[in-house]
Amino acid sequence: MSYRYQDLERWLLQGIEQQRWQPGERLPSIRELCRQKQLSKATVMHALQRLEALGLIAVRPKSGYFVLPPPAPVEAAATPPAIRPPRPVTVSDVLLDIMQRSAAFDLLPMPDTDERPRALVTLNRCIGRALRRQKGSDHQYYDEPAGSLALREQLVVHALKRGWHAAPERLCITSGCQHALFLALMACCQPGDVVAVESPGFYGVLQLLQQLGLKGVEVPAAGQGMDMDALDAVLQRWPVKACIVSPAFATPGGALMPIEARKRLMALADRHDLALIEDDIYADTAFMEIPDPLKALDTENRVILCSSFSKSLSRDLRLGWVSGARWHDRILQLKLVTQLASSRYLQQGVADFMADGSYAGHLRSQRTRLRQQRDQLLQVLNAWPVECQISRPEGGLAVWLELPLQIDTLALYHRAREQGVIITPGPLFSMTGQYRHCLRMSFAHPWNERRLQALQQLGVLLAP
Amino acid sequence: MSYRYQDLERWLLQGIEQQRWQPGERLPSIRELCRQKQLSKATVMHALQRLEALGLIAVRPKSGYFVLPPPAPVEAAATPPAIRPPRPVTVSDVLLDIMQRSAAFDLLPMPDTDERPRALVTLNRCIGRALRRQKGSDHQYYDEPAGSLALREQLVVHALKRGWHAAPERLCITSGCQHALFLALMACCQPGDVVAVESPGFYGVLQLLQQLGLKGVEVPAAGQGMDMDALDAVLQRWPVKACIVSPAFATPGGALMPIEARKRLMALADRHDLALIEDDIYADTAFMEIPDPLKALDTENRVILCSSFSKSLSRDLRLGWVSGARWHDRILQLKLVTQLASSRYLQQGVADFMADGSYAGHLRSQRTRLRQQRDQLLQVLNAWPVECQISRPEGGLAVWLELPLQIDTLALYHRAREQGVIITPGPLFSMTGQYRHCLRMSFAHPWNERRLQALQQLGVLLAP
Repeated sequence: MSYRYQDLERWLLQGIEQQRWQPGERLPSIRELCRQKQLSKATVMHALQRLEALGLIAVRPKSGYFVLPPPAPVEAAATPPAIRPPRPVTVSDVLLDIMQRSAAFDLLPMPDTDERPRALVTLNRCIGRALRRQKGSDHQYYDEPAGSLALREQLVVHALKRGWHAAPERLCITSGCQHALFLALMACCQPGDVVAVESPGFYGVLQLLQQLGLKGVEVPAAGQGMDMDALDAVLQRWPVKACIVSPAFATPGGALMPIEARKRLMALADRHDLALIEDDIYADTAFMEIPDPLKALDTENRVILCSSFSKSLSRDLRLGWVSGARWHDRILQLKLVTQLASSRYLQQGVADFMADGSYAGHLRSQRTRLRQQRDQLLQVLNAWPVECQISRPEGGLAVWLELPLQIDTLALYHRAREQGVIITPGPLFSMTGQYRHCLRMSFAHPWNERRLQALQQLGVLLAP
Repeated sequence: MSYRYQDLERWLLQGIEQQRWQPGERLPSIRELCRQKQLSKATVMHALQRLEALGLIAVRPKSGYFVLPPPAPVEAAATPPAIRPPRPVTVSDVLLDIMQRSAAFDLLPMPDTDERPRALVTLNRCIGRALRRQKGSDHQYYDEPAGSLALREQLVVHALKRGWHAAPERLCITSGCQHALFLALMACCQPGDVVAVESPGFYGVLQLLQQLGLKGVEVPAAGQGMDMDALDAVLQRWPVKACIVSPAFATPGGALMPIEARKRLMALADRHDLALIEDDIYADTAFMEIPDPLKALDTENRVILCSSFSKSLSRDLRLGWVSGARWHDRILQLKLVTQLASSRYLQQGVADFMADGSYAGHLRSQRTRLRQQRDQLLQVLNAWPVECQISRPEGGLAVWLELPLQIDTLALYHRAREQGVIITPGPLFSMTGQYRHCLRMSFAHPWNERRLQALQQLGVLLAP
């Protein structure tokens, strides 16, 4: 089955690919297309807008639609990026090196404070107590593969505040969100399958695709999260098996996906029988209310929610979780096979920390701190002697900067490193080398005089 | 290149497969074969002995060699098991269920002691101290993918006592031995590849093969570990990519592979360019000196050593390690992708525990305890009112029982569970349903009156 606008879209696409219309050339007008193809104006407009979303054509007011040139490897990144066909993911060694360093979100010289957030002291006390309460031969037993029931129950209570009626028996504890994403992809995909990802998007996901032999197709994402028009077009062109989205404060830009887009995503997933993998790791950093997860809309049991405490509490806990929807059993088996079990004393300690309200209290005080840190960062960036577009997220730990096209942030990375400053260059967030003129900047750490100064110097490096 | 005995072997094999000689029929005599094929007696004998090792023929004194019937699914398990061609591994749901329960090595009612080994108290104190020593924004950073250098250095010191000159930069910390095995197999194999495993052997390995889409071929293993004649035959017949062995106290039987067999294994691996995956998890439970690892003989950089603290110290630590040989870089990437990092405070705590000699002291006192527990177990088993063959390992945590053929330990599993006793039935240790008349029994836990009684009752259940 196909719609009339799809037939037109396909016909136009073919024409562009076969250069019936050259780059720069005008397409037939809407009126001509209506007459020639016997279609309504709305149908023609719909097809044209979809090609526009794909970055293949552009509208010039009062002149019509023009064919865009195919993007050159670097410089063309300013034009809306064309969607490239699915491809095996390869991450260059340079990028891998940067990824490994940047995994620490290690933007600038480390803050020199020795003070720990009070919640962390409480957390460690809870873990220490759980350790001391072990007895007899507790150390001779593995935990069950799904993880501690006490912790899963606390996660369910936390999820309820966000409109998600989770069930402990449908959750599986993991060694962090990356482990959860790994299990999710292994459970719902085979090597060679096509997976749609956000662009710019999380580099850990790109590495996962590479290691699992999956093909990736990048769907543009910006201030509203993944672009649903673009995803729609992608789904019609290629046999996409799964789609990974971060509806809440996606890295690098921190977008929060609006409810309309979420509903459309669910409808698209139903129509194309997609597995939706929801990376929820930034949700608990929300400056206002914690947004509902996509999972709360999941009537067809197709949203695999992945998350962890790494962004909201501690990266050193190595505790995450996955709600595997229809792939739950397979995920449990994979968890068993990849690491047998998680640590019980640790899970018990974190469950205790949640049960006495410490986690909720920590999130409340953290959100004020994070918002201040974001504002301080934006203040310095806005004063940089260079024109740039900066995202202004309401959660997450970073902003996304689009700098003038001629700036190469990969080159900047090395120059900044020589000055002891670590930045995260744009190309890390794409498998097609896009975003060379972009940067992710973190506000995860408190600012001090030295760090703010380094930030200002970075701006000087960039000045024309 | 092939040897003359190989040609004869292949010719005989074909004859058996094409039923030129029926099951039960006598093969041509040694003298006839010498004449017919123009071969020396030694060459003919060698070929016949290899077919015997494969379980295809049997010798009857003064009568010659006879073709064995192909093994029936269950009852034939008593005859030396024929080696079956490589096959995709499937583990039935019943077995999966048992595996998940037995992963706890949960043989019998739990010991009722509340006392913890002193070393465990010390270990927890070390971990607690490492937790308290975290400061500033430590919790906001991930550990490096290879894991804590302090812990890797301690592992190197420990390895030196065993003739293995490890290097910290060639080690990678994992979430346990299962995680290490998973990374090792993912690094050196592709889906569809053939992997040789011990039979009976560790069920976690069979599950790994299944989940990674690898084919398994079972190589008989007994009192001396994996049978090198059988492995040799397997390597000549099938394109084996990797071989997983546990030279030190392999589960279920606890065999310690003699040095001659180890050398032959290294030579075979060189000849066939195998990846050798050494499961070293039981080595530190040795009752006498801790045996050298196979890795100490590895001149060709092809032995991937996998281990953890789960059997020697605590199953709840979830800390293991892998020395990846020529696959080290790929393993590091896979570690990064599967879980980013390990917990630093935990690794630091364990490193401190090792550095002050507590780990070595723990092993010394544990070995005495384990030997006593083994002896107590053997004493009860030897008094069982049923004939059985029992292994007598010098390390590890379990013995292997071969019971009379008519006993079905899978059925026994369910009857024993009704009485609150959990046993580990033989078929878990094979992908071909063998060993229905066998059992693994653990001596990991201290015995008491109640547990010894349960053990005696189990014997009564078995009596004819």
